[in-house]
Amino acid sequence: MSIRVLVWNENEHEKKNALVKKLYPDGIHNAVAAAFKGQPDITVATATQDQPEHGLTVERLKATDVLFWWGHMKHGDVDDKIVERVQARVWEGMGLVVLHSAHFSKIFKRLMGTPCALKWREAGEVERVWVINRSHPIAAGLPEYIEIEHEEMYGEPFSIPEPMETVFISHFEGGEVFRSGVTYQRGAGRVFYFRPGHEAYPTYHNPQVLRVLLNAARWAHNPAPAWTSINDAPNVPHDKAPVPLEVKGPRLHADGEAGHR
Amino acid sequence: MSIRVLVWNENEHEKKNALVKKLYPDGIHNAVAAAFKGQPDITVATATQDQPEHGLTVERLKATDVLFWWGHMKHGDVDDKIVERVQARVWEGMGLVVLHSAHFSKIFKRLMGTPCALKWREAGEVERVWVINRSHPIAAGLPEYIEIEHEEMYGEPFSIPEPMETVFISHFEGGEVFRSGVTYQRGAGRVFYFRPGHEAYPTYHNPQVLRVLLNAARWAHNPAPAWTSINDAPNVPHDKAPVPLEVKGPRLHADGEAGHR
Amino acid sequence: MSIRVLVWNENEHEKKNALVKKLYPDGIHNAVAAAFKGQPDITVATATQDQPEHGLTVERLKATDVLFWWGHMKHGDVDDKIVERVQARVWEGMGLVVLHSAHFSKIFKRLMGTPCALKWREAGEVERVWVINRSHPIAAGLPEYIEIEHEEMYGEPFSIPEPMETVFISHFEGGEVFRSGVTYQRGAGRVFYFRPGHEAYPTYHNPQVLRVLLNAARWAHNPAPAWTSINDAPNVPHDKAPVPLEVKGPRLHADGEAGHR
Amino acid sequence: MSIRVLVWNENEHEKKNALVKKLYPDGIHNAVAAAFKGQPDITVATATQDQPEHGLTVERLKATDVLFWWGHMKHGDVDDKIVERVQARVWEGMGLVVLHSAHFSKIFKRLMGTPCALKWREAGEVERVWVINRSHPIAAGLPEYIEIEHEEMYGEPFSIPEPMETVFISHFEGGEVFRSGVTYQRGAGRVFYFRPGHEAYPTYHNPQVLRVLLNAARWAHNPAPAWTSINDAPNVPHDKAPVPLEVKGPRLHADGEAGHR
Repeated sequence: MSIRVLVWNENEHEKKNALVKKLYPDGIHNAVAAAFKGQPDITVATATQDQPEHGLTVERLKATDVLFWWGHMKHGDVDDKIVERVQARVWEGMGLVVLHSAHFSKIFKRLMGTPCALKWREAGEVERVWVINRSHPIAAGLPEYIEIEHEEMYGEPFSIPEPMETVFISHFEGGEVFRSGVTYQRGAGRVFYFRPGHEAYPTYHNPQVLRVLLNAARWAHNPAPAWTSINDAPNVPHDKAPVPLEVKGPRLHADGEAGHR
Repeated sequence: MSIRVLVWNENEHEKKNALVKKLYPDGIHNAVAAAFKGQPDITVATATQDQPEHGLTVERLKATDVLFWWGHMKHGDVDDKIVERVQARVWEGMGLVVLHSAHFSKIFKRLMGTPCALKWREAGEVERVWVINRSHPIAAGLPEYIEIEHEEMYGEPFSIPEPMETVFISHFEGGEVFRSGVTYQRGAGRVFYFRPGHEAYPTYHNPQVLRVLLNAARWAHNPAPAWTSINDAPNVPHDKAPVPLEVKGPRLHADGEAGHR
Repeated sequence: MSIRVLVWNENEHEKKNALVKKLYPDGIHNAVAAAFKGQPDITVATATQDQPEHGLTVERLKATDVLFWWGHMKHGDVDDKIVERVQARVWEGMGLVVLHSAHFSKIFKRLMGTPCALKWREAGEVERVWVINRSHPIAAGLPEYIEIEHEEMYGEPFSIPEPMETVFISHFEGGEVFRSGVTYQRGAGRVFYFRPGHEAYPTYHNPQVLRVLLNAARWAHNPAPAWTSINDAPNVPHDKAPVPLEVKGPRLHADGEAGHR
Repeated sequence: MSIRVLVWNENEHEKKNALVKKLYPDGIHNAVAAAFKGQPDITVATATQDQPEHGLTVERLKATDVLFWWGHMKHGDVDDKIVERVQARVWEGMGLVVLHSAHFSKIFKRLMGTPCALKWREAGEVERVWVINRSHPIAAGLPEYIEIEHEEMYGEPFSIPEPMETVFISHFEGGEVFRSGVTYQRGAGRVFYFRPGHEAYPTYHNPQVLRVLLNAARWAHNPAPAWTSINDAPNVPHDKAPVPLEVKGPRLHADGEAGHR
């Protein structure tokens, strides 16, 4: 069965700014989606923030294996209920690829538990995205580094938890460095943050950047059945324990009672 | 300067249940606080959920180096604003030690980004807390394992992120296992989860358990100045870059503009 | 293309001990190899310590994607040159699955950099191998735990580096616990240690144990081209740097000189 | 009691090269040792490769809490027996700080289990050592980055295991990046690799570099008693198990027998 990718985009800069509209006439979501076109193992769809439920209904998320997320100006307008829904689906096993300015998205901050802050500068400088973990699936088919002619600078310290794996580190013409490709696991879901992708530049038309996105979709896909019970806290009665057991000492809970949350 | 420990407790079971009241006549918070009494390098205070702002005012948190947290029945009643305040203080560098049923506290779930769920059983069975990472500061002075005569069972899978360090693993008479001592870093703050401590048993009177709490306070203390700017996203102007830089290409942001959140 | 699995066995107990011979008449290597029989994506072969070059010639390792390793009595007789050859091949990307008593094999100790010691007892007790990381590919298709009627006990502390992922934790009838399934990455190669498999018991005829081995082969397979240059330390001349550069200050090395090792 | 630091140096460039002799007239070891002079909590001594047993006798290592290691031209001449002795002492709890070209030392490669290779260039270019993990004890008292006017370039991929913590990342004038401060734990011993320190430049006279060395000594010090039994594999007899146990099934080992290695 195919990997079902859903590309989500705030889709605001494209409406408001002539430059962005020219670079991404069909929206950043469709530029990202192009990374998966023609791949026999992947099907791709898009969703945007202005749709009902931000295009992320329960059914749609259930039918999504890997979600890509681009947002910037309207992070604060994303409904907390939808964020919780996405988070719960990641825990069940949906992969999540967080792009560029979405480091400050509600969903990424919730999954990380940290501020996810950084330094920045918009000066069109050269970014070199060095491949640190050369044998990682997300780096498949890449040269030593990706050179991007014009990009926004993001600089350390990037206040994220220590990553599971550091795949890419960027440096910028102005002298800063940044961990630009990092992986995490949250519940059954794999999470990948990828830095490049400022809306003022044609980054999502760069074939090597698109290759990273394609690799990331395959890496983030967890083929295991959804772990729908991951948020449960089941009581195991004493007579169902692996080793036969008599109840000893005092008790506060009755048999079969639900735990406190 | 001393390590300023604050022990926070929901303090509800102690009021409502005769058994718990008998075990902990001064509340679980005071039993935990006893772990630090007489230590020349530590000062200790307590706070409870029923106090104004749950006893966790801005000033009080600012004056706290390590916060211990015990909660169970009233997780849901903890004010989200206070939870955000505690989280921000952890990011700045305050240590947090999360006890037993507080695996389901709002603050722990927010810092982990995962459900933090588990299996459980209240049958007064024996728990053996094995020391896995023998040279870890939190295990200082302990034997091979702590044997607790009566404890509530917590069983895997415990839906937490892969820990930075696994210090303890418990097994229970009924046959389950559990990662009962795990460490994390979130921003500048160190986080330790420690499993034992069911309110129906005298666990917090066990000298080896108290030794773990004492060790944890010292381990979780970060002597660095508070990282108060950790949530900022400063713009670095092109003429302040480490390497002299001219602006190239188009821009969407004006100089000195704040980033979107 | 298939995943090319090679199962390596010391093959000594099977010759010397009637009990082991009865349990594994074709050797432990063939019992392990049975895990992969009939799988369309895997081809399997075996090698033993008594063969020339321990059956691990340069050509054979080059043609191996995942190596399984069982050894016990004759760890000390494995040729250091062959161990170095296997290690170099792991760095290039060959997966390695280390079984049971091979925790003390030269190859595992070299890849870990630690003693890899543990406690043990041979008493035929029940082992329960709990699935901790339920969504991990190595746990695919397993129930909550694997129950093995008779196994040798291994107890913590297991002196290994903190794992990349803890997949399984065992407890034993006598009360000990053990991290019985742990993953690592070394260079481009993935390493998995799996505890069960004492030669005195029919563990490698247990279908759930065989399922773990099958899962492990798929997980440990790195489809990337072999990273044959991983041990090189190339000099990058100043005129080949990504950013044009003049040599400044004094130098000790001549252009194109090899670095010291 | 003081932290007993021992600074070990190959001490070869200083004898053979006029430039290095001028920069470090008393040897690199004494320049490094200067970092600890006048600190009330530290005592410091030095040892060099040309001394008997490389200055690393059993007694001396036993009396060392943190060992600093600088080597380059003569890695291959370090006696394997001494390397094993140092490794065993790290396992027991001695801290190890590995400097610059010692990435290729036998002791670092053995503890990592990987090639520890990298790219390099000697062009006197500017290195900026960015502080990534700002609240880490090793970064105490540092600004955003350390700027070093002339340094040798080391470039990724650096073939090390994924670090426990990434404290520093450097970029170089020529455009490369490098994880220049990384931490590990091996047994009870803490290991820190720190990149700067090419013999042709006055790096070890830079006060910020010396501050890192001082911080590293304090961080790497494990005050726990030496874990001298870490390499043992004790048999736990069935009648000494935490839970009373009868021997079941067949056995290959006799009571009290030593395990195979």
